[in-house]
Amino acid sequence: MSNASAKKKPKVVIIGAGFGGLWAARTLANQPIDVTVVDRNNYHTFLALLYQVAAAELDAEDIAYPVRSVFWKIPNVQFLLAHARRIDRQNHRIETDIVTLDYDYLIIGTGSVTSTFDIPGVAEHAYFLKTLEEAVALKNHIICCFEAASRETEADKRKALLTFVIVGGGATGVEYSGALAELISGPMVKDYPSIDFSEVTITLLEAAQSLVAPMPDNIRNYTVRQLSDMGVCVYLNKAVAEVTKEKVILKDGETILTNTVVWTAGVRGENLPADSDIPVGRDGRVSVRTSLQIVNDERIYVIGDLAAIQEDQRVLPMVAQVAIQSGVKAAQNIVHQIAGQAPEPFHYADRGSMIAIGRKAAGVAIGKRTFKAFIAWMMWLIIHLFNLIGFRNRVMVLTNWAWDYLLYERAVRFVFPSKMPSGSRVRSCADNAEGKR
Amino acid sequence: MSNASAKKKPKVVIIGAGFGGLWAARTLANQPIDVTVVDRNNYHTFLALLYQVAAAELDAEDIAYPVRSVFWKIPNVQFLLAHARRIDRQNHRIETDIVTLDYDYLIIGTGSVTSTFDIPGVAEHAYFLKTLEEAVALKNHIICCFEAASRETEADKRKALLTFVIVGGGATGVEYSGALAELISGPMVKDYPSIDFSEVTITLLEAAQSLVAPMPDNIRNYTVRQLSDMGVCVYLNKAVAEVTKEKVILKDGETILTNTVVWTAGVRGENLPADSDIPVGRDGRVSVRTSLQIVNDERIYVIGDLAAIQEDQRVLPMVAQVAIQSGVKAAQNIVHQIAGQAPEPFHYADRGSMIAIGRKAAGVAIGKRTFKAFIAWMMWLIIHLFNLIGFRNRVMVLTNWAWDYLLYERAVRFVFPSKMPSGSRVRSCADNAEGKR
Repeated sequence: MSNASAKKKPKVVIIGAGFGGLWAARTLANQPIDVTVVDRNNYHTFLALLYQVAAAELDAEDIAYPVRSVFWKIPNVQFLLAHARRIDRQNHRIETDIVTLDYDYLIIGTGSVTSTFDIPGVAEHAYFLKTLEEAVALKNHIICCFEAASRETEADKRKALLTFVIVGGGATGVEYSGALAELISGPMVKDYPSIDFSEVTITLLEAAQSLVAPMPDNIRNYTVRQLSDMGVCVYLNKAVAEVTKEKVILKDGETILTNTVVWTAGVRGENLPADSDIPVGRDGRVSVRTSLQIVNDERIYVIGDLAAIQEDQRVLPMVAQVAIQSGVKAAQNIVHQIAGQAPEPFHYADRGSMIAIGRKAAGVAIGKRTFKAFIAWMMWLIIHLFNLIGFRNRVMVLTNWAWDYLLYERAVRFVFPSKMPSGSRVRSCADNAEGKR
Repeated sequence: MSNASAKKKPKVVIIGAGFGGLWAARTLANQPIDVTVVDRNNYHTFLALLYQVAAAELDAEDIAYPVRSVFWKIPNVQFLLAHARRIDRQNHRIETDIVTLDYDYLIIGTGSVTSTFDIPGVAEHAYFLKTLEEAVALKNHIICCFEAASRETEADKRKALLTFVIVGGGATGVEYSGALAELISGPMVKDYPSIDFSEVTITLLEAAQSLVAPMPDNIRNYTVRQLSDMGVCVYLNKAVAEVTKEKVILKDGETILTNTVVWTAGVRGENLPADSDIPVGRDGRVSVRTSLQIVNDERIYVIGDLAAIQEDQRVLPMVAQVAIQSGVKAAQNIVHQIAGQAPEPFHYADRGSMIAIGRKAAGVAIGKRTFKAFIAWMMWLIIHLFNLIGFRNRVMVLTNWAWDYLLYERAVRFVFPSKMPSGSRVRSCADNAEGKR
């Protein structure tokens, strides 16, 4: 480092206030470094529980945490509510929609977005489940389908309103299918006495030959059995060819009439800011060195979902633990670089994985051990509560869960028109039930 | 009643699921009457705590309750999520945006809306505080003002961002001024270390000569003193002439530079459905007989804020207790009419009134007795908790209050872009801080 830069504190910019970005910032706390965290939202979202917001189980506010509060006691970390638009690598600058920031080191942890694989109609007609806004829009739509079905006299239209198709048998698809089944068999049955609930169908479509593929065999089988017991029709080896306003067409020619397609079948890395000249793979993820630096720039680290981190002949999965651990390591490596030392390689400590199917039904895999049903569900509850940021959010989530699990009630079944995405033309519930667009 | 109608159950339609409508429906529970409650929202809103949503103290969901849940155990009450568009009094029919309903008796309890008194710029530039959507939009705007101020270098612009003007010294204006002062002096100070908080001004303007006019003298004086202690500048006898995007102009020529005008100065009866031929006063309220029937139709009752109920030479105020009691009486009178008896006159039992200024600061008047400060605040807390519908909502509100009052924290300071009113052009926080439109 030059003499000039030795005099002033090095500047680290972190783009993204997800798990990776927050843990990177915390790791740099109280160091002689100026840290700026940039995010488009002023809150951190606990994405693992997003499907419960879409199933009217939790409030949007329960799984969000104000970013500025995280840094109340960390004076060297600033927060900037802005959208990073362009990276100028030559001059070590980031242009946002508000100001331009200089950086000495940059950590990019902007995460992942839904991938439609360019399948026709998915972007226009399917509901996504990757952001708080999407979760709230999906919840509103589900309730509006029941409102519309309760007064629909044409049998075909009513059937389409009461048919819910979830595409993608990964964790999100499985967890949402289960949560939706419980929402419908519990409070919806009580809310809509005029609806014949034998007309309701929940279908989970998976293009591959098994659900929750990375899980051990016994948990995969348990998952299918459990979902079937809850009334979810699970179809494997079924790929989607097209989605329209009132149906989904499968590659084998089969057609399902439905107003609700929930697309959880694909994720890709979030688009990078423009002109960054950072090489990106076909899935939008950035190849990184073992140190988490990008291949062509030692000052730039990529972490979390956005990073394609190779380890033991595999690319690490897009999960919170990888984000947290890579965020910490990237920050530590920047501290090394500032001290004139070499960055160290990242090694992922796999803490296991878990899936919640429903009330008292979950699967947990830790190393070679697996747990199922009630004990796994308790582990799931405790670990998710523990990982929520903020004591208040924990109390709120616990209250909502207790309410839901003990009383089979869902407290948050509101259709707030104002929660609709601003650009959407959907205003009334009558419109909304007809579909996304 | 004719023989034909004696055979089938009489139909009662209730428009509005506020306190009046819900209590009317409950009064008709398990009678041989078909009751349909119509509302544009599928939730009931506890309006008394709306200002706390706008002050980031409560979630929108905490003060909303799903209407269908209220009627789970009342089989003769149906709910219809619809907008009543037209009343056909000749044929006893109501047209909604979805279906047409026949009625034998009709109760209208659609409440009140903000009145701008046609003062220029109020509708375009001032924030209102009468619906959940408006409360959330106002909260988002306040947070965005601080975000923008934290990086605004022009002194005048920064001052306008940090000047908050509340117009109207009634209960809503007073309660919001106090809640905003506490929001700013607590969490905002911690969130924005770069802001000089001596630049922040909260101004409460009242056109008349005292705040909370219906309250006894000692509580009115206490309110002014308390607000001043909390840093709110209270100006009496100050009427607004015009509101623009960046200032408010008073009738005496004075001008205040501000991006935030909160308009709580006027309310009027909600617009009636079209063609109803129901006579309406200048304030939009409907004159009713002592029985709560309208003057020109014995089958139609008007209750709550919408009704101008005369008693002891005064018109009853727009408060929850009048709505509840008039809703119950209207329902009882319909039962009398069905039984061939005469409707009875309504008498309001005044249970007193209360105002909360802030933490440990409230005023309560019951008959000739008054209470102030901590004891009044405890009464206020208990009565508001008790009147919230739903045990879960009570737990949530209590948790948020405990959080706020014990830890001086506000948990719900999020700017969800999706909560912006759909029609609004506001998309980013940068736009939002500039004003409502």
